[in-house]
Amino acid sequence: MIILGIDPGTVKCGYGVVQVLQKGRAALGYGIINVPAKLKMPDKLAYIYNEIENVIRQYRPVECAVETAFYGKNIQSALKLGYARGTAIIAAVRGGLHISEFSPKEVKKSVTGKGGASKEQVNYMVKTLLNLNGKEIPLDASDALAIALCASFKPEDDKKRPNSWEDFIRQNPDKLVNL
Amino acid sequence: MIILGIDPGTVKCGYGVVQVLQKGRAALGYGIINVPAKLKMPDKLAYIYNEIENVIRQYRPVECAVETAFYGKNIQSALKLGYARGTAIIAAVRGGLHISEFSPKEVKKSVTGKGGASKEQVNYMVKTLLNLNGKEIPLDASDALAIALCASFKPEDDKKRPNSWEDFIRQNPDKLVNL
Repeated sequence: MIILGIDPGTVKCGYGVVQVLQKGRAALGYGIINVPAKLKMPDKLAYIYNEIENVIRQYRPVECAVETAFYGKNIQSALKLGYARGTAIIAAVRGGLHISEFSPKEVKKSVTGKGGASKEQVNYMVKTLLNLNGKEIPLDASDALAIALCASFKPEDDKKRPNSWEDFIRQNPDKLVNL
Repeated sequence: MIILGIDPGTVKCGYGVVQVLQKGRAALGYGIINVPAKLKMPDKLAYIYNEIENVIRQYRPVECAVETAFYGKNIQSALKLGYARGTAIIAAVRGGLHISEFSPKEVKKSVTGKGGASKEQVNYMVKTLLNLNGKEIPLDASDALAIALCASFKPEDDKKRPNSWEDFIRQNPDKLVNL
């Protein structure tokens, strides 16, 4: 099971790809999509869409996890976050991924045990859980990895079962035999 | 020149398609995309995307006009509007349309002469300008038609020139000869 976590924004989007192993979890990839500041808003969204599409093509996740809420006071920031997150969600839905949503508190609690943990604490615990100690991981990327980890800790029963052969094959690539 | 105006929301999205004629403008189509309330947010966005894709396929507009701002005080509403508007923009960008953005004041002023006009006044003037008097047009659809009209009143010089053969053919379907 491979899960893509996204922490979207119109300036930069963090992403993190987590694989659930028999024992523990591994980070397949993570990074930041830096959105060129000179672009107009619609082109920024198109840029984000294309980059997320590339990440999906590269790692073939079956699930995409995003945060639900916005904790801030600025209406314009909420609107912009909405543009970016809506774009990320649409790229994932159209890529055939199941979307799961978590509150920032749930995400922080699932990786640090504390709903009010700082980004630095999240960063530290993400590295510990994914055996990435010693690596420099930008905060936006560790936030995205935390979102993917949070989704990976959900009980298996809550997970969406494959509802098509395409889904099944994506979830079980080893079952595919090239004759 | 055919312009699609969109007034997006996660509950309903108004759309209006306006054609610029030698003299005046005509409404090719308008309506409301009613987003099923039972759907989860990601599926609502996918629904909006698909419906807008259908409208684009049906009317082949070259430009999509949306509003830029959100005049409200509720952060959650701004976030949701962002999801819906981001989705509408992405559907249009990926459909090859040029996106233009206008403030609600610009839109109201361009059709009624007053930046603070009510939705009812906008509705009345949209019907007058498009020779739709006597028709019942829902307010969300007349808002979308007003956005398209606003874009159609922009000086031609401001319009984006076709930058590919595909664009050119879309803008000049009569130049296409089937041999």
